[in-house]
Amino acid sequence: VRAGVVRPTPSIVTLTTDAGPIYAAQMRGVLLSAAPGVTVVDLDTGLPPLDVVHAAVAFRAMAERYPAGSVHLVIVDPGVGGPRAPIAMATKDGSFLVGPDNGVLDLLAQSLGRRACVRLDPDRCAAPGPRSPTFEGRDLFAPAAARLALGTPLEELGHQFVPRRLRLPRPRRHGGRLVGRILLVDRFGNLITNVPGDWAPPERTTVRVTLGEDAAPRSLARVRTYSDLEAGRLGVLVSSFDLVEIAAREGSASTRCGAKAGDRIEIVLAPVRATTARGRRRPPA
Amino acid sequence: VRAGVVRPTPSIVTLTTDAGPIYAAQMRGVLLSAAPGVTVVDLDTGLPPLDVVHAAVAFRAMAERYPAGSVHLVIVDPGVGGPRAPIAMATKDGSFLVGPDNGVLDLLAQSLGRRACVRLDPDRCAAPGPRSPTFEGRDLFAPAAARLALGTPLEELGHQFVPRRLRLPRPRRHGGRLVGRILLVDRFGNLITNVPGDWAPPERTTVRVTLGEDAAPRSLARVRTYSDLEAGRLGVLVSSFDLVEIAAREGSASTRCGAKAGDRIEIVLAPVRATTARGRRRPPA
Amino acid sequence: VRAGVVRPTPSIVTLTTDAGPIYAAQMRGVLLSAAPGVTVVDLDTGLPPLDVVHAAVAFRAMAERYPAGSVHLVIVDPGVGGPRAPIAMATKDGSFLVGPDNGVLDLLAQSLGRRACVRLDPDRCAAPGPRSPTFEGRDLFAPAAARLALGTPLEELGHQFVPRRLRLPRPRRHGGRLVGRILLVDRFGNLITNVPGDWAPPERTTVRVTLGEDAAPRSLARVRTYSDLEAGRLGVLVSSFDLVEIAAREGSASTRCGAKAGDRIEIVLAPVRATTARGRRRPPA
Repeated sequence: VRAGVVRPTPSIVTLTTDAGPIYAAQMRGVLLSAAPGVTVVDLDTGLPPLDVVHAAVAFRAMAERYPAGSVHLVIVDPGVGGPRAPIAMATKDGSFLVGPDNGVLDLLAQSLGRRACVRLDPDRCAAPGPRSPTFEGRDLFAPAAARLALGTPLEELGHQFVPRRLRLPRPRRHGGRLVGRILLVDRFGNLITNVPGDWAPPERTTVRVTLGEDAAPRSLARVRTYSDLEAGRLGVLVSSFDLVEIAAREGSASTRCGAKAGDRIEIVLAPVRATTARGRRRPPA
Repeated sequence: VRAGVVRPTPSIVTLTTDAGPIYAAQMRGVLLSAAPGVTVVDLDTGLPPLDVVHAAVAFRAMAERYPAGSVHLVIVDPGVGGPRAPIAMATKDGSFLVGPDNGVLDLLAQSLGRRACVRLDPDRCAAPGPRSPTFEGRDLFAPAAARLALGTPLEELGHQFVPRRLRLPRPRRHGGRLVGRILLVDRFGNLITNVPGDWAPPERTTVRVTLGEDAAPRSLARVRTYSDLEAGRLGVLVSSFDLVEIAAREGSASTRCGAKAGDRIEIVLAPVRATTARGRRRPPA
Repeated sequence: VRAGVVRPTPSIVTLTTDAGPIYAAQMRGVLLSAAPGVTVVDLDTGLPPLDVVHAAVAFRAMAERYPAGSVHLVIVDPGVGGPRAPIAMATKDGSFLVGPDNGVLDLLAQSLGRRACVRLDPDRCAAPGPRSPTFEGRDLFAPAAARLALGTPLEELGHQFVPRRLRLPRPRRHGGRLVGRILLVDRFGNLITNVPGDWAPPERTTVRVTLGEDAAPRSLARVRTYSDLEAGRLGVLVSSFDLVEIAAREGSASTRCGAKAGDRIEIVLAPVRATTARGRRRPPA
């Protein structure tokens, strides 16, 4: 740790994984055994299995709300035991990110600014004893996160390393036409896209939205929040991720539209006309 | 806080929501960032989406087991961003309840006794910066809960307010006939009704139970606990909520009866005769 | 507690149950109310309902990662309220196990070495007031665990008792033939068997695996980790439980094979020949 960066006491270690409760509990135990005073906080321990893009997006959205100086352990690791590097990064706010070098850490590292990165050296990080080649989250990454939480300098855990970038599809816009992808579907069935919130059409306009490759476009109202829609009605808004979202009031947009993560979305701004989502006689969709 | 009410250190903030892991993790992060020493405890962060009645019943059952002085944050908020008020309450035991004014806090407030209530003023509670109109749990309610956990007096967070009551269907009884509703179905498929436990028929009697509007009645034994029933058999007992419950031994009463939350239930006391659920030759159902 | 065993401060109490979030939150509240300084850590609170064998296996795998001196509360209790004994054990490393005497604690007790066991006496453990006969986890076991976490000697909670052993099917081997059972299926669909890891065939061999009673055998490669398999391909490896595991790369072995916990598995070592899972022209399955 760079001189001058004061570490909070006790440290927070967050845990993000697709591995489910049994494996998550094992990692939690390793953290509490190796770093007894630490506060272990679950972010999401039941992410969709092996989906690095979903995990990277969700991890950034969750972890960026935590105090500077936290240690973030992320185990979504389809290549466990194979040639992908185990890494740890320090960020400019004094936080640490620990996980496999498959891009899952990259979005948060970009947000916080990367200060340094090492490839974890098992001889310097792991607990003594055998390590399972199928669960390095428990046997290598969690011990490394515990050491960082205890104040071990990053440089002592391995050699300098240049991590992978995560390649995400980029949204595009041409005039009034926005094209993107659904990044994730939340628990309510809201469709969170990769289109930035400040590209969203103005409130109280109507837009034409096409989901998937061949679907017919739908005319939807752009609203501010769910309760501006009539019950069951679909609309377009800016999500709390600050991304464009398609939602149904008190219903699942995912079910209504048959849409899922990865699907293409196209939004065309219709000619501007003042409208309100409530009280209209002939709703647009 | 009233003089003489001593706050425990460190404070407990509980979290109850239907929003699922990603949004719950964001709220947890806001709490830990704004009130670093606080202990954040999840009650249930995966409640059935948008079901205020279920949430209110479950929240009361969970939160009433926590220490006096806890701050309880409840985000089940179908009207987020709309006209419903954001509120915080102080109760007579020195606890605080924070959430939307849709009745979700009302059952616990009645149990603990309400001492004061304010409508949260965003200018006094929220963190500086933009607030998402679709996730006030993160941007308004969690910061308010953190302030209460740090000891900010309730009155500084907003103006006095009279909260909504939650209207629940009331159970009725006429002689030996009980009529109520299923309040919730637990993870085992047990049917928890709104009929008070002290209205339950005596142990070792047989009752006739009708679930739903048109179903045929079933003759069920009233037992003390699940293991008094034969394997797979349905029975009536007093649940740990202190409410009448229909359960199957090592099976799901919900699946067996096709019953769900909201369904009507009628229980008629059969003429009293001594019986035991075990060892009978011709079981009643 | 035996003289000379120093208890960590603050104590950790872990929680393992099949009861789901509402009942787990109630137990967590009882623990935090009765033992305010304690750190409550969830292991798994959503185990498969009423499955004592799965719970015992998962509990051992999780709890053995926690610091010596922890108090482990396990509520998987199909016989709640009935004649099965409520027990607490002390182990040789200074930890405590609390739960019903149905075998769910037995595997960890064997691993850690049992030092003492008592049958919990409600008059000495439970909080004053009524106890629900359907939820002793909340009203008897959690108060007992809290007392142990506060340092109450085990002997004060009840009389000496000899706990049940858990009878698990034992794996067998005859020459090159291994016969066992699937103990549990993890979140990825990996099949964790009861065959010890050190019985596994050597890496880079091919084995014939029969799942279930009547199925046709499959020729599978024995590999070191998932990424040694081609995408979607099934293989045999040593799991992080140190047991033989059948897995599919980036897929569910459970779905692929139609296999579930309890199923029989037979593994026959094929004649040894050097092979690699990658790069072969004609893969074995």
